[in-house]
Amino acid sequence: MSEYAIGVDLGGTNLRAAAIDRSGELIAKISGETHLSAGRDHVIGDLVRNVVALRAQLGEGGLVGVGIGVPGFIELAKGMIVGSHNLPGFDNFPVRDDISRRLGLPVILENDANAAALGEFWMGAGKDVDDLVLLTLGTGIGGGIISHGKILHGFVGMAGELGHLTVVPNGNPCGCGNRGCLEKHASATAIETMAKLVALGDNLTAKQVYDLAVDGNHLAIRVFESMGSALGIGLATLVNVFNYPLYLLSGGALPAWEFFAPAMFAEVSARSFTFRNTKTRIEKAVLGNEAGLYGAAHLPFQIRAT
Amino acid sequence: MSEYAIGVDLGGTNLRAAAIDRSGELIAKISGETHLSAGRDHVIGDLVRNVVALRAQLGEGGLVGVGIGVPGFIELAKGMIVGSHNLPGFDNFPVRDDISRRLGLPVILENDANAAALGEFWMGAGKDVDDLVLLTLGTGIGGGIISHGKILHGFVGMAGELGHLTVVPNGNPCGCGNRGCLEKHASATAIETMAKLVALGDNLTAKQVYDLAVDGNHLAIRVFESMGSALGIGLATLVNVFNYPLYLLSGGALPAWEFFAPAMFAEVSARSFTFRNTKTRIEKAVLGNEAGLYGAAHLPFQIRAT
Repeated sequence: MSEYAIGVDLGGTNLRAAAIDRSGELIAKISGETHLSAGRDHVIGDLVRNVVALRAQLGEGGLVGVGIGVPGFIELAKGMIVGSHNLPGFDNFPVRDDISRRLGLPVILENDANAAALGEFWMGAGKDVDDLVLLTLGTGIGGGIISHGKILHGFVGMAGELGHLTVVPNGNPCGCGNRGCLEKHASATAIETMAKLVALGDNLTAKQVYDLAVDGNHLAIRVFESMGSALGIGLATLVNVFNYPLYLLSGGALPAWEFFAPAMFAEVSARSFTFRNTKTRIEKAVLGNEAGLYGAAHLPFQIRAT
Repeated sequence: MSEYAIGVDLGGTNLRAAAIDRSGELIAKISGETHLSAGRDHVIGDLVRNVVALRAQLGEGGLVGVGIGVPGFIELAKGMIVGSHNLPGFDNFPVRDDISRRLGLPVILENDANAAALGEFWMGAGKDVDDLVLLTLGTGIGGGIISHGKILHGFVGMAGELGHLTVVPNGNPCGCGNRGCLEKHASATAIETMAKLVALGDNLTAKQVYDLAVDGNHLAIRVFESMGSALGIGLATLVNVFNYPLYLLSGGALPAWEFFAPAMFAEVSARSFTFRNTKTRIEKAVLGNEAGLYGAAHLPFQIRAT
């Protein structure tokens, strides 16, 4: 039996788990919903059942470990989520230790965007570099930084909160206490807010705004250009800070690339000497929403290797 | 004879060199001016003479290596400065190899703010941490990032250009092509520009604006508050990106700490969830303008050790 690890992506909407072997092949996967309304204990029970089911299917002997990606700020040492809006009830609860106790296995807890960045580094668009930055463009915006092949954590585990880069100092208020956070100007939520502001429609989803842009609606296109500019301001800062070779974008907004990317590149180019003078790449991530599963599964392999 | 390294700080105004031993003791130092008007060759000649003089004084046998800190973007692989406004004539010139050839010694070229950050890490305010960020507040603003005890370089060597963080998207134009760079809103030059804008005086130096603030002049105090706010926006972004334990400020603006720091802390606190919820420290650097000498001298020791 070859060695494998189990990666879990515990999101506010979906709960998924995958068994992935050392070569990066996905062997088995379980996908379901996160039943938040049933409470934290129920959700953790579902998660544990998924892991146990995969282990039963593939054999206990080959299991190297379990990695779990979760939204929110992480306190690594405590294995806790702090300030997560997407997993109410998990705040300041010792989620890592609770899951570990129920499984009888060590568990690695990680921020979901960090896990996605590691997944892209391991098996996705970042396979050819040592260092990269990933932005996940969804309801909010997450970030992950890979430095010399490892997640950059900072001293508590909260590094890479790139959705909270200030891109408009007096911009839209954010739940984190800041104003003008990148995620208030470039996420799906921001698209919907902007659609309202330009009187495109009161209750349009980001997908509907995208469809209007595809139809040639100038206001909808302007909304995506504004999103692209905000992304460009944030990316220019990241390029100037890190001078990494690769910056990846992932998430539900990627199909709108043709509408936001030109403004994004124009902004980064205007704002970053380093971008203009080096072969810095800003590209689409390639693993879609499986990046987090790959990254979470890679964590136990990385720990075993060091 | 104990081992020592020679650190050089080649600035637009001053040219200094110091011999420092492995324990971090400064054994000998030569300070002089950078005679830019005499041309690049003359400046390099002065630099080489200083290194040779220190080596003659202390003995060839113990010399581990030579590190040189210079302003501007660095191409590490080529050992060249690109886009330096402070050392005209050095742009795209193979300065590292030229000095190395004249000395008959290997030479390490480094950005001056990176060197200062490494100096503070080795012998200054960062002795108790593994990771830190330094901002040098002078005519411009430089930055250096220490990650696991080493300078974060990026793939070309241009990482840590923190003076070019965008803090005001439609702010003052910068030589780098951007608008609203941190250094256009929080450097000595920015202080002087703001003094003009608030009609404090047309040709005041930053020092004179500081003296007015000390005298209780409200406009002068407002100028430093504005500087503090800009710093706070930049620092909040850095805290959210890195979650490092320590952010240091150095440079000529430090005496004005009492005037800019309250606005800076208020801004960081409002803008960074991580700052409010962790024991992140923002403090004064302690080595003054010797930090760069210590850092430059530490480089050969670090290379020898790995």
